[in-house]
Amino acid sequence: MQLGAADLEDFAQGCAILGSGGGGDVEAAVLQARAAIEAGGPVPVIDLDDLADDALVMPVAGWGAPTVGIEKLGSGREGAALAAAVERWFGAPVSAVMAGEIGGGNGVLPVAIAAALGLPLVDADGMGRAFPEGPQVAMHVAGLSPAPAFLVDEYDNLVTLEPSDGDWLERLARAATVAFGGTAMGADFVMTARTARTATVRSSVTLAQALGRAVRTGGVDAVLETGGGARLVTGKVIDLERRTTGGFARGEVTLAGTGPDVGRTVTIHVQNENLLAIEDERALAVVPDLIVLLDEATGAAVPTERVRFGQRLTAIGLPSAPVWRTPAGLAVAGPEAFGFTHAFTPVEGLARG
Amino acid sequence: MQLGAADLEDFAQGCAILGSGGGGDVEAAVLQARAAIEAGGPVPVIDLDDLADDALVMPVAGWGAPTVGIEKLGSGREGAALAAAVERWFGAPVSAVMAGEIGGGNGVLPVAIAAALGLPLVDADGMGRAFPEGPQVAMHVAGLSPAPAFLVDEYDNLVTLEPSDGDWLERLARAATVAFGGTAMGADFVMTARTARTATVRSSVTLAQALGRAVRTGGVDAVLETGGGARLVTGKVIDLERRTTGGFARGEVTLAGTGPDVGRTVTIHVQNENLLAIEDERALAVVPDLIVLLDEATGAAVPTERVRFGQRLTAIGLPSAPVWRTPAGLAVAGPEAFGFTHAFTPVEGLARG
Repeated sequence: MQLGAADLEDFAQGCAILGSGGGGDVEAAVLQARAAIEAGGPVPVIDLDDLADDALVMPVAGWGAPTVGIEKLGSGREGAALAAAVERWFGAPVSAVMAGEIGGGNGVLPVAIAAALGLPLVDADGMGRAFPEGPQVAMHVAGLSPAPAFLVDEYDNLVTLEPSDGDWLERLARAATVAFGGTAMGADFVMTARTARTATVRSSVTLAQALGRAVRTGGVDAVLETGGGARLVTGKVIDLERRTTGGFARGEVTLAGTGPDVGRTVTIHVQNENLLAIEDERALAVVPDLIVLLDEATGAAVPTERVRFGQRLTAIGLPSAPVWRTPAGLAVAGPEAFGFTHAFTPVEGLARG
Repeated sequence: MQLGAADLEDFAQGCAILGSGGGGDVEAAVLQARAAIEAGGPVPVIDLDDLADDALVMPVAGWGAPTVGIEKLGSGREGAALAAAVERWFGAPVSAVMAGEIGGGNGVLPVAIAAALGLPLVDADGMGRAFPEGPQVAMHVAGLSPAPAFLVDEYDNLVTLEPSDGDWLERLARAATVAFGGTAMGADFVMTARTARTATVRSSVTLAQALGRAVRTGGVDAVLETGGGARLVTGKVIDLERRTTGGFARGEVTLAGTGPDVGRTVTIHVQNENLLAIEDERALAVVPDLIVLLDEATGAAVPTERVRFGQRLTAIGLPSAPVWRTPAGLAVAGPEAFGFTHAFTPVEGLARG
């Protein structure tokens, strides 16, 4: 499999779905990926089993506010700077690029970086979705250290972080990102293919591609068939509350059911991503499972920051990657980690279907 | 020559004089240096000529607000963490420690680090005084790059900066320092002894020691004889203005002459350090030359943040290191670099003596 310019729209649409409302806007990332592919050719997507055991895999992700990311397109040299830093540190070449987070624009940017470097993209990522906080990755659940973490900006500045733990990584990386002017491109949890095989979410690139193709050809039903999830409600946005606190976009979106759902009211709680869907105090879907808002007409995923009053949406729930449903995964990214009192129950068992 | 526990008070007093009002409080640094010397023994002070050409010299300095530095004493492991980072980067051992800035507490802290590492301190520094901004060092005037710059805190976090220029070093280091909680210990401009011989201010450790001994044994007159400067005025603080803007302590101190100076009024302009002494619109001393406020009774240097209304002080001017009086030095740290319109004239030619 490979990702060429013609594949980008489907892939980006799939990443938007897996973003669960977050992960950054895909449009600017598609522009960068398209330019890089036109210059460097299509990007091979390979399985981790196809890499040598000790081949180095470089996970990359954008840091910073998504709204700033749209304005600042980057120099195009960020991937080369990160790879050079990684290779100098580990004394070995980078064999493949990986998305730290497949959801939203962060799923698409690694395609631009892989194309610019002439490297393949591995069919895996660190989340299988998007999460708001840095340590919420499968590599952290697997007990790996994020250090050294590398951050670059479009002015050729390079910062290397060796934090004492994941909280310090988050704190230092955010400080550097702010000093950079709001956005940075980063590489952390660099690992061998052998380690990556059990410490990442596998097949997420092919899943994103399949979800994007599904929504284009078969709409919401095809997405549910591909992703194995459940429809939560179809309705109109009748209430929308947004506040930005602690660097996160928090809020609630309330949908009043339409058509067969008339009379139902579903509220979705948001912290960058959609985290909890509630109806009459009953949870319909709970983080780490994915809650996705799709435009009722086109089926396209609508990110948190583009939800508007009066919009007609279908909310769906998709099962998260298996790692997030383990006790260790739930401790890092389950409902309690976000301050919710609802116990986690898989969306397949909660939603009406 | 060596610095033992019994030498610290003189040395610290000399560093306070060279601080020209800034460089951070010496008291907390003396406590750390005393503890490190009691554990590791006295610190040999060596000349750069006594090191092999390719021996690595590690300049160290504290970053952050001096007031925070007094509260946070550090873990004592900072020097080892910096040396380990430097040695890993350069693939060679650190042969000696150097003060990035001899003025104030930043002149004393390298003694603690050298003692903890069991390394000598070189008889040189980056300024021959204290300056408010990171790039204002002799190594920068000599055209050296500060990168890589290493920063550590007391929680064993390590940040490595490879900025594209000195302004970015300043910006990124300040961001990391704030994220660390207000203070950090840093190493930058790491160089070989061969390079250091022409890119630093030589003999500044022995000068500090001599100035401290002078003030203890002979007061202000002995300081002037040792430092080669001139008395500016002796008087009482009749006006004191302080404001903290842009991360700097700015302000003015006005002295009304007493004794033989009755009738004179001298105003000193401050940005962390004392930068300009004015009498009747005539400059008595101008940065980069040193302007030092000494307690009239004890001769002890009074740092900017400890000047009080009604205090009786003697202001003296001392010549700066020769590098600062060159066109390249003046461009980096002359009056114009601080926004003053006064041309630089050596204090020996300006003051009444």
